[in-house]
Amino acid sequence: MSVSDKTKPAALIASDRVEGAPVFRSNHKRIGSIKRLMLDKKRGTVAYAVMSFGGFLGIGDDYYPLPWALLTYDETLGGYRVDVTDEQLLGAPKFARDNWDFGDREREVELLGYYGYPPF
Amino acid sequence: MSVSDKTKPAALIASDRVEGAPVFRSNHKRIGSIKRLMLDKKRGTVAYAVMSFGGFLGIGDDYYPLPWALLTYDETLGGYRVDVTDEQLLGAPKFARDNWDFGDREREVELLGYYGYPPF
Repeated sequence: MSVSDKTKPAALIASDRVEGAPVFRSNHKRIGSIKRLMLDKKRGTVAYAVMSFGGFLGIGDDYYPLPWALLTYDETLGGYRVDVTDEQLLGAPKFARDNWDFGDREREVELLGYYGYPPF
Repeated sequence: MSVSDKTKPAALIASDRVEGAPVFRSNHKRIGSIKRLMLDKKRGTVAYAVMSFGGFLGIGDDYYPLPWALLTYDETLGGYRVDVTDEQLLGAPKFARDNWDFGDREREVELLGYYGYPPF
């Protein structure tokens, strides 16, 4: 870590401010809200955010894991903006209600790959 | 990341399960509870946990930032166990109520150092 990294503002956010925050697509349409964050105990990292999806595109009310890097906080919208296509959402990994842990790091890597992020 | 890393269980925990969890010392005495986690937006990491301290040792009800690595979940206790001495707690960095952001990465590094962890 460089000295400039150390003195820069850390830009922190409280976990309980993220939970419940609405999620919008780039067209500003609300598609759901952040239910919780799944944390990697050992690494101390956000493995993914779990979005409660409001049944948009005829899809039921499921939980969608989203890579943290996909979420951009938008002050104007007062929530998170994600840049995903209809196709991406339709084929996206998801959980049935109340089951929001892959329990397997391989599937986390697949999740990142699905949205175009490198593994860790 | 090695293949064995990928296939190992990820050991995730939900952010809303961490919030509110009691915190004990190694002598099993409860000293407070986790109020929230402060997340580094850009890195997607837990910068620190904020413990609401119950006024133990004659110290008032303040918020104490604790390095994530200091918290060990103890199934038997049903909460987190931290190995800190009285001296460490008495001199530990803390926040006044409702002010729980250093706003400065340098102080995060100091926090890690205080509890004996390397910077990031």
